[in-house]
Amino acid sequence: MSDDLTEEQRHAVPDGYRLLDWFQGFGRQIGPLYERFDGQGGYTRAFRVAEHHCNGMKNAHGGMLMSFADMAFGHAVSVEKSHWWVTVRLMCDFLSGAKLGEWVEGTGEIIAEEDHVYTVRGRIWVADRTIITGTGIFKAIEKRDPRPGELAFQSRG
Amino acid sequence: MSDDLTEEQRHAVPDGYRLLDWFQGFGRQIGPLYERFDGQGGYTRAFRVAEHHCNGMKNAHGGMLMSFADMAFGHAVSVEKSHWWVTVRLMCDFLSGAKLGEWVEGTGEIIAEEDHVYTVRGRIWVADRTIITGTGIFKAIEKRDPRPGELAFQSRG
Repeated sequence: MSDDLTEEQRHAVPDGYRLLDWFQGFGRQIGPLYERFDGQGGYTRAFRVAEHHCNGMKNAHGGMLMSFADMAFGHAVSVEKSHWWVTVRLMCDFLSGAKLGEWVEGTGEIIAEEDHVYTVRGRIWVADRTIITGTGIFKAIEKRDPRPGELAFQSRG
Repeated sequence: MSDDLTEEQRHAVPDGYRLLDWFQGFGRQIGPLYERFDGQGGYTRAFRVAEHHCNGMKNAHGGMLMSFADMAFGHAVSVEKSHWWVTVRLMCDFLSGAKLGEWVEGTGEIIAEEDHVYTVRGRIWVADRTIITGTGIFKAIEKRDPRPGELAFQSRG
């Protein structure tokens, strides 16, 4: 957190979430994004809908939600398999929208694997409202070490 | 075009393309984006891959390409039907990547319609290399007037 955040914004990040350290490229452009581990192998990623995520109706843009889906679903390959990955296919069903100021969360789980190609079922939600359900196909590339979440567990001692 | 573009960047926009006037929200955040009409009802949208579109490998991020796909495919509903639209489902197959500096183009065509819900088949490419093929389901909302492309044709007299 830095001095350019208001007190309100500082308090707007739920417990357990940490800011992702994406300081370049597209990850920075659409950030800030956050991540949380549950200590049992599960994870969620999240962002709060800001002006620069919105369409003209002050809802999170579909492109932003799909970008987030890619990052939230594909991350299952990093967390469960400790691999970096590239997206082969992504399919998203838009069930509802996310308004300016809302806290959007998402996660994924691997449901099939073949030749280092993983099928991930994912979900994105705001509170108890599902925004997107979808499926991603991700190809594992080089090994990711340490596995995301491991460091978080260690640092909690 | 403005003074903050270099001579090289100014020349980097192919003939017939005009800058989209998206000066707020997500459209601005991932821009600049461009559009061209062929005068016969067809259109393409485009962008040049810049640093803020990239992943760590200096390729256009999958999220950026899907955001662009949403804007390039869904636009068929505006151009062909003169309606604004929201995305119901988007499915993208990633066949290849787009590197920093490359000019990415995309378009879509309506292949089915039912109750103001349109199925659009789309394609995204760099020169003669296809990057993404995909299908979008878009729901028409209020009427968009004038129809995009009409103004462009008129201004060419």
